[in-house]
Amino acid sequence: MHFSIPQTAAVPELQARIDGKTKPPGSLGQLEKLALQIGQVQQSLTPSLERPHLLVFAGDHGAARAGVSAYPQEVTWQMVENFLAGGAAINVFARQNGLQLQVIDAGVAHDFGPRAGLVDAKIAFATRNYLEQAAMSAAERDAAIVRGAALARDLADQGCQVIGFGEMGIGNTASASLLTHLLTGTPLADCVGRGTGLDDAGLARKQALLAQAALRASLPPDADALSVLAEFGGFEIAMMSGAMLAAAERGLLLLIDGFIVTSALLVAARIAPTILDYCVFCHRSAEPGHLAQLRALNAEALLDLGLRLGEGTGAALAWPLVRAAAAFLNDMASFESAGVSEQG
Amino acid sequence: MHFSIPQTAAVPELQARIDGKTKPPGSLGQLEKLALQIGQVQQSLTPSLERPHLLVFAGDHGAARAGVSAYPQEVTWQMVENFLAGGAAINVFARQNGLQLQVIDAGVAHDFGPRAGLVDAKIAFATRNYLEQAAMSAAERDAAIVRGAALARDLADQGCQVIGFGEMGIGNTASASLLTHLLTGTPLADCVGRGTGLDDAGLARKQALLAQAALRASLPPDADALSVLAEFGGFEIAMMSGAMLAAAERGLLLLIDGFIVTSALLVAARIAPTILDYCVFCHRSAEPGHLAQLRALNAEALLDLGLRLGEGTGAALAWPLVRAAAAFLNDMASFESAGVSEQG
Repeated sequence: MHFSIPQTAAVPELQARIDGKTKPPGSLGQLEKLALQIGQVQQSLTPSLERPHLLVFAGDHGAARAGVSAYPQEVTWQMVENFLAGGAAINVFARQNGLQLQVIDAGVAHDFGPRAGLVDAKIAFATRNYLEQAAMSAAERDAAIVRGAALARDLADQGCQVIGFGEMGIGNTASASLLTHLLTGTPLADCVGRGTGLDDAGLARKQALLAQAALRASLPPDADALSVLAEFGGFEIAMMSGAMLAAAERGLLLLIDGFIVTSALLVAARIAPTILDYCVFCHRSAEPGHLAQLRALNAEALLDLGLRLGEGTGAALAWPLVRAAAAFLNDMASFESAGVSEQG
Repeated sequence: MHFSIPQTAAVPELQARIDGKTKPPGSLGQLEKLALQIGQVQQSLTPSLERPHLLVFAGDHGAARAGVSAYPQEVTWQMVENFLAGGAAINVFARQNGLQLQVIDAGVAHDFGPRAGLVDAKIAFATRNYLEQAAMSAAERDAAIVRGAALARDLADQGCQVIGFGEMGIGNTASASLLTHLLTGTPLADCVGRGTGLDDAGLARKQALLAQAALRASLPPDADALSVLAEFGGFEIAMMSGAMLAAAERGLLLLIDGFIVTSALLVAARIAPTILDYCVFCHRSAEPGHLAQLRALNAEALLDLGLRLGEGTGAALAWPLVRAAAAFLNDMASFESAGVSEQG
């Protein structure tokens, strides 16, 4: 479980190449920073973004039955079926934008049997209820991380250069809230939101339950990330953390979605802070805890569309912007090559 | 020059169709509003976005030689050549995102001769210098509007359902600043920015020159939009106004880019306020006057990436989001069709 992720170094000539394109310097705003990042990740003046994948990790949460979500737990497996049938939002957006979708059962409370298009990486049929005990054992957590890392390495071996992360799991905003509280030091109340759509009473109940869970575990403020993950994480979150770490280790670009995906990244970044060099923060979620995460990571998101769906939809929607950043770097003419006069 | 643009009416069942998709209600944020708008524009539960075009209108400004831009006037025709050669940012983004690019010479100070890929709609070799006299005559202005309208009608006849607007013209942020000042009532200082990259001294000079131009013209605060357009507009701006009006009249969706394109829309919206129902505000430009425009139009932009390049790049970059809005409406499963449990 050691991940060796080099800090991305400056690439000589990269900024000059960006500035030499036929546009006023800086006029492509965030896309210019993104082009610089992609070039640095690949240590290249002409980066490529081949075989992009979007991985949706699904898992169930023991605490879901305690009432932390507006939807019943069955929706997790029903939505996995929807993914497999191609009818969910992430299917539509991934198809449109040319991302290969991979759906992973990290721990759904349902027996799918062998199914085409579904990666069986089930650690267990849901985590345990963290209101009563740790969500997972250390062995389960490590198995999830190792399995996630193996998935990312397989994709890297196949020539994949970009992985977008998405998830599905009724109750997983609650899990992400606890992780965010403990890994960023943000007050719990600022980390808890309506998730899929709780009303005021539901939100108050969720806040009370999560406060109770935090009290039950009584982790020290400096608890290590792996302990926090075992206590409150979901299998889909742990598996994402592992996949992120291995993907960055292999030099891939990581497309980070919203609140739950970023909670997995909080864990990964504690293990290997240099992972952040490889991350594109695709959108700012309407789930309030996401802002705390982005602040803690000093991250600037590409999109701010009030999305709060999960599944990796923010990553899939931002992907054309990432492609555009690499495309302008690769395909635009320079002032010199186009014979355009430079600034006076 | 009369344009009849019907207000878009509500479509029965459209909101229910959006809410019935397999996602928590509202969880796709701005994309849900966009899907509603597109459905209303087309009066359809299953809108289509066929043959999308991006039109880049190019024109020169007599005032450019007075020093309102960081670049020499020659850059306008040089960039048109760059568009024709496929090397500019808008070429790269339009290609990537499947927009057909059309480049229109509305009034560039250069003789291109007959050129494949360039629409010759030249009104004159640049406008006159508005520091001394009106930029264009009423006849020139009307010719530009009529020609722009004809371009949009031709595209509509060919089955085009979406037009994105872009522009090129050294000095045209200055023109847009004056239009914005006079058509929104915003103080001139808040409408003037660095354009392609003026330094502090250049910005001060631009502000002084534009104040001088406003004083010279001494238009009444309630001057009609067509008078303001003739006084300070560019041919590319006037032609865009005409194309926008005709496009909306034919029921097309309009992709509005940044500061200069929105100045053309300010004119069009004074002539036919219902045009706004057809407009997607693609991004918020880093040019400060754009904020004043968006506020005046009560508009919410999709992207906020610090772009200030023009050419329609913000529209081209936002286009995948517009497609995504229509795609989720058309292609996502419903709770009913997918057998997914609804909110408890």
